[in-house]
Amino acid sequence: MLFFECDYAEGAHPAVLERICTTNLEQTAGYGADPYCRQAAALIRTLCASNGDVHFFIGGTQVNTAIITAALRPHQGVLCADSGHINVHETGGVEASGHKVLPLPGRAGKITAAQIAAAHDAHMADTDREHTVQPGMVYLSQPTEYGTLYSLDELCAISNVCRSRGLWLYVDGARMSYGLAAAGNDVQLPDLARLCDAFTLGGTKTGTLFGEALIITAPALQADFRYIMKQRGALLAKGRLLGLQFLALLENSRYLNIAAHANTQALRIAEAFRQKGCDLLYPSPTNQQFPLLTVQQAAALDAHCLFAHWASLPDGRLVTRFCTSWATRSEDVDTLINYIEGL
Amino acid sequence: MLFFECDYAEGAHPAVLERICTTNLEQTAGYGADPYCRQAAALIRTLCASNGDVHFFIGGTQVNTAIITAALRPHQGVLCADSGHINVHETGGVEASGHKVLPLPGRAGKITAAQIAAAHDAHMADTDREHTVQPGMVYLSQPTEYGTLYSLDELCAISNVCRSRGLWLYVDGARMSYGLAAAGNDVQLPDLARLCDAFTLGGTKTGTLFGEALIITAPALQADFRYIMKQRGALLAKGRLLGLQFLALLENSRYLNIAAHANTQALRIAEAFRQKGCDLLYPSPTNQQFPLLTVQQAAALDAHCLFAHWASLPDGRLVTRFCTSWATRSEDVDTLINYIEGL
Amino acid sequence: MLFFECDYAEGAHPAVLERICTTNLEQTAGYGADPYCRQAAALIRTLCASNGDVHFFIGGTQVNTAIITAALRPHQGVLCADSGHINVHETGGVEASGHKVLPLPGRAGKITAAQIAAAHDAHMADTDREHTVQPGMVYLSQPTEYGTLYSLDELCAISNVCRSRGLWLYVDGARMSYGLAAAGNDVQLPDLARLCDAFTLGGTKTGTLFGEALIITAPALQADFRYIMKQRGALLAKGRLLGLQFLALLENSRYLNIAAHANTQALRIAEAFRQKGCDLLYPSPTNQQFPLLTVQQAAALDAHCLFAHWASLPDGRLVTRFCTSWATRSEDVDTLINYIEGL
Amino acid sequence: MLFFECDYAEGAHPAVLERICTTNLEQTAGYGADPYCRQAAALIRTLCASNGDVHFFIGGTQVNTAIITAALRPHQGVLCADSGHINVHETGGVEASGHKVLPLPGRAGKITAAQIAAAHDAHMADTDREHTVQPGMVYLSQPTEYGTLYSLDELCAISNVCRSRGLWLYVDGARMSYGLAAAGNDVQLPDLARLCDAFTLGGTKTGTLFGEALIITAPALQADFRYIMKQRGALLAKGRLLGLQFLALLENSRYLNIAAHANTQALRIAEAFRQKGCDLLYPSPTNQQFPLLTVQQAAALDAHCLFAHWASLPDGRLVTRFCTSWATRSEDVDTLINYIEGL
Repeated sequence: MLFFECDYAEGAHPAVLERICTTNLEQTAGYGADPYCRQAAALIRTLCASNGDVHFFIGGTQVNTAIITAALRPHQGVLCADSGHINVHETGGVEASGHKVLPLPGRAGKITAAQIAAAHDAHMADTDREHTVQPGMVYLSQPTEYGTLYSLDELCAISNVCRSRGLWLYVDGARMSYGLAAAGNDVQLPDLARLCDAFTLGGTKTGTLFGEALIITAPALQADFRYIMKQRGALLAKGRLLGLQFLALLENSRYLNIAAHANTQALRIAEAFRQKGCDLLYPSPTNQQFPLLTVQQAAALDAHCLFAHWASLPDGRLVTRFCTSWATRSEDVDTLINYIEGL
Repeated sequence: MLFFECDYAEGAHPAVLERICTTNLEQTAGYGADPYCRQAAALIRTLCASNGDVHFFIGGTQVNTAIITAALRPHQGVLCADSGHINVHETGGVEASGHKVLPLPGRAGKITAAQIAAAHDAHMADTDREHTVQPGMVYLSQPTEYGTLYSLDELCAISNVCRSRGLWLYVDGARMSYGLAAAGNDVQLPDLARLCDAFTLGGTKTGTLFGEALIITAPALQADFRYIMKQRGALLAKGRLLGLQFLALLENSRYLNIAAHANTQALRIAEAFRQKGCDLLYPSPTNQQFPLLTVQQAAALDAHCLFAHWASLPDGRLVTRFCTSWATRSEDVDTLINYIEGL
Repeated sequence: MLFFECDYAEGAHPAVLERICTTNLEQTAGYGADPYCRQAAALIRTLCASNGDVHFFIGGTQVNTAIITAALRPHQGVLCADSGHINVHETGGVEASGHKVLPLPGRAGKITAAQIAAAHDAHMADTDREHTVQPGMVYLSQPTEYGTLYSLDELCAISNVCRSRGLWLYVDGARMSYGLAAAGNDVQLPDLARLCDAFTLGGTKTGTLFGEALIITAPALQADFRYIMKQRGALLAKGRLLGLQFLALLENSRYLNIAAHANTQALRIAEAFRQKGCDLLYPSPTNQQFPLLTVQQAAALDAHCLFAHWASLPDGRLVTRFCTSWATRSEDVDTLINYIEGL
Repeated sequence: MLFFECDYAEGAHPAVLERICTTNLEQTAGYGADPYCRQAAALIRTLCASNGDVHFFIGGTQVNTAIITAALRPHQGVLCADSGHINVHETGGVEASGHKVLPLPGRAGKITAAQIAAAHDAHMADTDREHTVQPGMVYLSQPTEYGTLYSLDELCAISNVCRSRGLWLYVDGARMSYGLAAAGNDVQLPDLARLCDAFTLGGTKTGTLFGEALIITAPALQADFRYIMKQRGALLAKGRLLGLQFLALLENSRYLNIAAHANTQALRIAEAFRQKGCDLLYPSPTNQQFPLLTVQQAAALDAHCLFAHWASLPDGRLVTRFCTSWATRSEDVDTLINYIEGL
């Protein structure tokens, strides 16, 4: 059975795993206070041209709720696209931390500077605004849940709106590497460091066993952040495992090479569907592709291949998702394309 | 200046206030453990034909967050109309207690049994449902934020859906008296007691200085409820003030007479707008009316009268709200109608 | 039956109640945005020689949790005496808001500047301090739970420790009037305004139906505070009821005269016990007295009088509490003293 | 430099790490829905002679807060020894989830059935008990923070008290293997399964890279538990890493052999201190030893060895902690003993 269901089905890139093995018997301090975490943080600062703080988390829900909790006062909420991961796929982790998610209608997973400005300004114009949740932060994902990307112009506009209105800007980069490696992408790590208050560079979906690096550039969000990590169970005892993996992932641009490979394979799949006359939900330049299939087409592929059934359209077609990763084999994509051509 | 902005501009109905005065020097136990609260609770049980527990709160946000918090497990959220008070006008009180509000698109402030069933069933059909918030409760308001009413048939259908699916059903009755007294209403207090797990009978907007009575009929929600009230600062030291006021409000059907007067005055206002050719947002049989006014019309009335500017329609008209109450004087409505006729 | 069980058994001082009655039919804006709240706030600022923000709450648990929640970041806790109301009598309201209460061993209900400094400094000296809760605030009560008072010297020392270490200082003044009126007290309202970041002046136990005034002097705690009140259900719809009552309580030094009367009666009771050979738990100059009675003595008084059984001592004696208030009648105290003399 | 500072300084036992490596390119479903987690859960059920639910977490703070949050209603708190990890070393994670920790004075890290009964019964005897936090759960650790063990008799007595009073009983077994392998231990896994409602079997400190297995035997605590894990960021994307490691740890009694080795080395260290005339804080049969050293002795050892300075005694001696683990080399202990003998 071919596997295109998600980008976290295997373990780690061999180079990453090897690093864990070769250091296994070393003795280091726990909870991230080890040389590997320090080196990885320094390397990330260099890649981001930033002197921000770098913290390593195991997973995305943890990092999202921790940074949102650290940033917001009790009466504040977080603006995001209605498809945002924090709004739909984290079992209310943000609300469990006391804060309302304030969804805005997204287009292809994205929201605009104008929407953010309007939401904030409408709140401030309300003379009874203390009866409603105050927007305090903007959450974006890059790439989005639909594999799409914010352009540098879009991100600059959002950053300007946020800074002029006192809103924190946070970017969830669980699949950031795929975005950085995508054709047409013009948002680089130093842009994120310059335009955002905090953002992540994901490892779990791009080559590590687990791990998300959080870069906090806003000084006000840096203070005491490790307390908040610990309180939420997010300080890994053998924290060096996170530093080690990021060092292996980032050296020699491995993260970009991994991601470029996955993007290439994803675009091959997308092109095969297009050739077959299947629309794609949105044009995605990254490792997630969302072909619209008839029930018959989906069933035919289900016999050979694991992929996600995402939603149903009013016209009866299914929105499906095919994911590639660092581990996707080119020959498996060949086989999949054969199946697609045979639909 | 005429006042139709809200239904809590004055103090208490004179009969209610008198009761506070005549008992002022009596010495009673605190925190609701006094004879007046016991008597008021017994009277409410009689009116509801229920042997449920009755608790008295000072305000609506308190009672809503307390009962929701008491009922839900950490991973559960509360379904409601998108216009629901808990979703838009309580500064995220439910989220601050750890739970996501799950809004459904309302019609005239109401949601349907079918919507609730669909939301619940879609959740349960999701094989990854532990990644999303589980619906655990349904919140309705009767009358709704738009003054409209659920019919008995609608409420029965919703109750059936909730019971068959293990969802708690809670009805916010901050303006319940106006609903009970409305022409065409067929939902009585015993219906609420029979069909819901908890509901409130509001005092603040219908004749008391303050106070909401919460009736909890579901045994599982009754246990230890006073702890949860105290934890949230909702046990009033001189708790008898709540019992006393409800006794005065409820005796001799005063709450219904008060509300009938307010409804009559509200419908006179609505009719005057209709005669003038102004649409009403929804047909409301209760004390809140929502005429759609041009900017010019609204400005003309603003000169003489306080009322709420609620929203703007795409065609430029304003949604406005005119409220009456127990305290509304018929002659003030006469004057307002004169102004309306002169628009 | 004589009543000395608590200081909130009656309604309001007649002058306070009269103010509610004479304004009953006035129409004012809701939620505290009315002229009476503004006037009361201005009067309190004058009495405190402060330009701080003033907010009115209904009860003490509400105000304590609101200001603590507003002040602390998620990883911070609040230092207090182990007998502090937030630690023992609010059903974990502070913890329900996410923060740990950090109790210090009190003496006569009081903690010292040295204890606070030591707790803070030990935390900061811990190289793994992110694994423990960071002290962020100090909670005192004046008078304390045992009726005792901080001297101005003690309060100055605590304030200095807090300011030098970045700890907020909050004083719960639920019974503040009794402290202000006490013989030997040297802490006045302007001292509190100068030395603390926030404090309350209680009404519920000193003459109003209900109500606590919160004075916030620290600018950083003032921002957006009404949102936090609303989120916690602490904005009273008919908010003027709070302003009105404080105006009546504070005019012509009524709050001090009320409290002086109560203190005098309390000290008469204490002296009677002392004459009878009964020790008092701590020397209290305010309206709460804690005589230590044998089981036989307590039973004898129980037959005639309601008072609180507080705790049992290892030697078998009971710690009891006798409370007076604005409403305590001198002749009732005469009768009680007769009973005491007859023990 | 010798390392006896903690039991999580190295990576994983080689057999555990090998399992991760050999399965690295397999494709499995995420979030714990994979065959390895199923096999590991089945194996644990067999070892525990239980049909309880088994869930895998990454770390101890996560598992503690998740099970406590799942079990308690909002007004309930958790009883534990004052030295309990949740009380002192998790940055208020339990409080951040809304619940008060209710510490009882421990002896050698342990509390008794009598203490628990007394705390519960005093609460229930309080007529104003809704003003205080209700005990809802008991938290123990086995071994304790001081390396000591509950006997089977003690655990049975505690279980009886909990069951007769409706208190959940949870045992934190972060170092459980060391307890199971300890001389004199008479508490086996089936005893825990029979006597507790939930308990953990730790991996992080006994041979895995990371991981705690939670066994939930009480049906009421099993429902919907994965939602609560996800909400708290505790579902690992590549969840199989947890199942794989526990399979390798548990097969052929590896966990017991590992732990027996560590205990032996720890007791050698303890004996050396004893021979030198240094007291041990408490008699510990497990991998943590707490010798009491003079400042001079500690400084002498600091030059050669990393170990924890835990606290200072009034007589000036330091409480220190020496930890062993699966990775401790016998020859390093020889060297340490030489240093001890030379003190």
